[in-house]
Amino acid sequence: MDQNPIPLPKEYPVPHDFHSNLRKRFLDFFKQQLGEQAKNSIVFLKGAVTIDKHDDDQQYRVEQESNFKYIFGCDLLDCYGILEVESGKVTVFVPKYPESYKMWMVVYSNEEIKEKYRLDDVQYVDQLESWIEKRAPSKLFIYKGQDSDSKLISSYPDFPYLSKYQVDEEELYWTLNECRVKKTDQEIEILRYVALLASESHENVMRKIRVGNKEYQMEALFKYHNFVYSGCRFTPYECICASGTGGATLHYIENDKTIEDKQLILADMGARYYGYNSDITVTFPSNGKFDEKQSIIYNAVLDAQRQVFASLKVGVNWGDMHFLAERIITQHLLDAGLLVGTIEELMQNRIGKIFFCHGLGHLLGMRTHDVGGYNKGCPPRIPELQSLRFRRDLEVGMVFSNEPGIYFVDFIIQEAFKDETKARFLNQEKISEFMYVGGVRLEDDIALTANGAEILNLVPRSIAQVEACMRGEDWKLIQ
Amino acid sequence: MDQNPIPLPKEYPVPHDFHSNLRKRFLDFFKQQLGEQAKNSIVFLKGAVTIDKHDDDQQYRVEQESNFKYIFGCDLLDCYGILEVESGKVTVFVPKYPESYKMWMVVYSNEEIKEKYRLDDVQYVDQLESWIEKRAPSKLFIYKGQDSDSKLISSYPDFPYLSKYQVDEEELYWTLNECRVKKTDQEIEILRYVALLASESHENVMRKIRVGNKEYQMEALFKYHNFVYSGCRFTPYECICASGTGGATLHYIENDKTIEDKQLILADMGARYYGYNSDITVTFPSNGKFDEKQSIIYNAVLDAQRQVFASLKVGVNWGDMHFLAERIITQHLLDAGLLVGTIEELMQNRIGKIFFCHGLGHLLGMRTHDVGGYNKGCPPRIPELQSLRFRRDLEVGMVFSNEPGIYFVDFIIQEAFKDETKARFLNQEKISEFMYVGGVRLEDDIALTANGAEILNLVPRSIAQVEACMRGEDWKLIQ
Repeated sequence: MDQNPIPLPKEYPVPHDFHSNLRKRFLDFFKQQLGEQAKNSIVFLKGAVTIDKHDDDQQYRVEQESNFKYIFGCDLLDCYGILEVESGKVTVFVPKYPESYKMWMVVYSNEEIKEKYRLDDVQYVDQLESWIEKRAPSKLFIYKGQDSDSKLISSYPDFPYLSKYQVDEEELYWTLNECRVKKTDQEIEILRYVALLASESHENVMRKIRVGNKEYQMEALFKYHNFVYSGCRFTPYECICASGTGGATLHYIENDKTIEDKQLILADMGARYYGYNSDITVTFPSNGKFDEKQSIIYNAVLDAQRQVFASLKVGVNWGDMHFLAERIITQHLLDAGLLVGTIEELMQNRIGKIFFCHGLGHLLGMRTHDVGGYNKGCPPRIPELQSLRFRRDLEVGMVFSNEPGIYFVDFIIQEAFKDETKARFLNQEKISEFMYVGGVRLEDDIALTANGAEILNLVPRSIAQVEACMRGEDWKLIQ
Repeated sequence: MDQNPIPLPKEYPVPHDFHSNLRKRFLDFFKQQLGEQAKNSIVFLKGAVTIDKHDDDQQYRVEQESNFKYIFGCDLLDCYGILEVESGKVTVFVPKYPESYKMWMVVYSNEEIKEKYRLDDVQYVDQLESWIEKRAPSKLFIYKGQDSDSKLISSYPDFPYLSKYQVDEEELYWTLNECRVKKTDQEIEILRYVALLASESHENVMRKIRVGNKEYQMEALFKYHNFVYSGCRFTPYECICASGTGGATLHYIENDKTIEDKQLILADMGARYYGYNSDITVTFPSNGKFDEKQSIIYNAVLDAQRQVFASLKVGVNWGDMHFLAERIITQHLLDAGLLVGTIEELMQNRIGKIFFCHGLGHLLGMRTHDVGGYNKGCPPRIPELQSLRFRRDLEVGMVFSNEPGIYFVDFIIQEAFKDETKARFLNQEKISEFMYVGGVRLEDDIALTANGAEILNLVPRSIAQVEACMRGEDWKLIQ
């Protein structure tokens, strides 16, 4: 065991006015939508609740629900929060614990909570009904809607006594989502920090993991690096550490295999800080050197990613970007002899979709697949782009992933071989030779600011960079 | 960034007959209790279910429910399992996923599941009703009962069609718990492995963490060590990494403070492997050297822990052990001048309880606070030992924690100062001088085997050992 001390962490200092700025911007937009309705109304949100582990006296370590965090900044569980629309005043209602709990857990006083989270007022949950009664709002706005990805309905306050009031379940959902789609500069600062943190963690994994290691050791190393250097206890999503053909399962989270020689490793892992996420994927060879077929597939994906990035600007439609990526990938597969036909035929028959089988990217923020992708008034989901999580025209403040990929998914390819409308475009023998490649995904986090598109992460991308990094060299000096 | 490769992990090879042995032992006991009732009956268990993260398309990483794991060994979620009492045959019912899921996640075939978990049969959940109908059991035994610690009721199968059958909700709960209380040698092997793993992780933290570090860096380091060397992704409970007065909150899990000079650090952290837990607490000085007051408190707790251990044997009552520990702690506090009076007066008035405010220890196994503490036929919970999680006579196969502690809990001590029946035994001035010590807890994991009591963990315990470890020396050579 070595005796080296642990370096001190470098936490990002979130500005004190972070949430008051978010609230101000939201209320400006909300009031603009509401007009007269805003008068004397309140926004009423429910925070994350405690989840028991089975019948054990243990609970899951739950993080705050993202809207609650966004508006109130408060991390405590089992709370409700009220934002008064006209004044912008925020009151959080917290559970009241018996005095004896103080022996077991840290119990903050309401005064401490108010100060810590810079709230206007803190009350107990059991005072909620009488508080609202006294306040007599003209309207209560509830965040209730079906998520376009999960199809789940968010949890909302549903006390019986609310029937005494006018409750609006329409306006808040889309307006709050719309604000969350367009990040403030302060939000982008955190997203940049968390993308760079995850980049370092990825680089550390790439330098150390070799043939013979277990996939989960990548996850262990990555999480450790985030946690020890920046206090990031959580990851935004389960780490995907896939070796060999595991890379062909898009959300492979088993991470239980031993890494073998001549495999590609697909590592899709992000960091999470103050509720904001990064989502970054790298792909690298287990033995430090890409073979010829791995290089062909890798460079096809990289080319798609780079050409998409070069095309990004305000007004560009993200659905068009998906088709651009698909075209580039298809062209590479055609050039390499895996496909047969003309590029136009291949695009028309969506042959590239057999290999690039998911959407090009998703909005990113307090959720990995962030809200608002198919918000009110935006281009709807279309059958041709069923897996694309948003199809909006790009606007300043949007943060999203750019993640083309090529996968050799056995059951999809076998089905395509059997489908005569597709089989005639496929070189079966050649494709079979590539199956061992598994999957390549390259995922960047992009922010579209007034200055243009910016890649928030910094990881080795070109084959020369990846191989240099794995040799322990300074890959940043290389193209 | 260093380029050192990550060492290969050393996973413990769980024997192939592990669960069949557990089942055989359980069925022998169960049939003995049931007599004629056993005939043609089945045990019907529900496994852990998927938990969504809010309305996000993400789920928590849930582990299998412990009874389900114990009987079936199967880690998959959203399953049901049936154990046929007479034949011992096991069938697990798994969810059926649409074909398209295979693109996103690893979907095992029923044949693969059967082989992986050595089950007799695997069916889909939607076949459950007709399977039971065809099987026509005389009785279904359901695991349903209120946990003596959490007061929660375990989740159980509650399909409407079960009303057609004779359902018994009594026998399974206490019999299965009783088997789980007495560990097999194979179970103790895993518990030994996971205690030694956590011991190494603790030692690593102790060697590296110093003044200026954040508390969460201990958690990061501990989790990393478990995960990277043994594949332990989960911890049995939230890591408690308390510096200074944080140690006086028993389940302090904030871990967000900076470690300061001259503080004691209380680290209560365990590892979890194959569903089995360790639960180990060490206490050490932030700057590597105990001061005088810290030493007095530390040695009081250590003396209690050692004397309890020396007294452990079959037939000893755990409640008596609690009182033994309390007596030793009280005597030390008396000797050090914090208390006033005779030891008998102090014990009679439970003055030690002001400082040693929790139970001496709990059963340990697939749950950190394991089942069966107050099982049918066992000594009940008594008001004098309200916080003690079991009060049984010790038997071969029991595994439990031995964790005396002394805490300077501000609100408890202030209350005692105000209570005249207690205040007269307290030297207020002297106690005030000790408040900064925070808390000392020393927690060992004990197995009572046919060979006697064994401490499963191996961590520095004496002051000389702790200080040697922190200097980087081989503390195992020191008393």
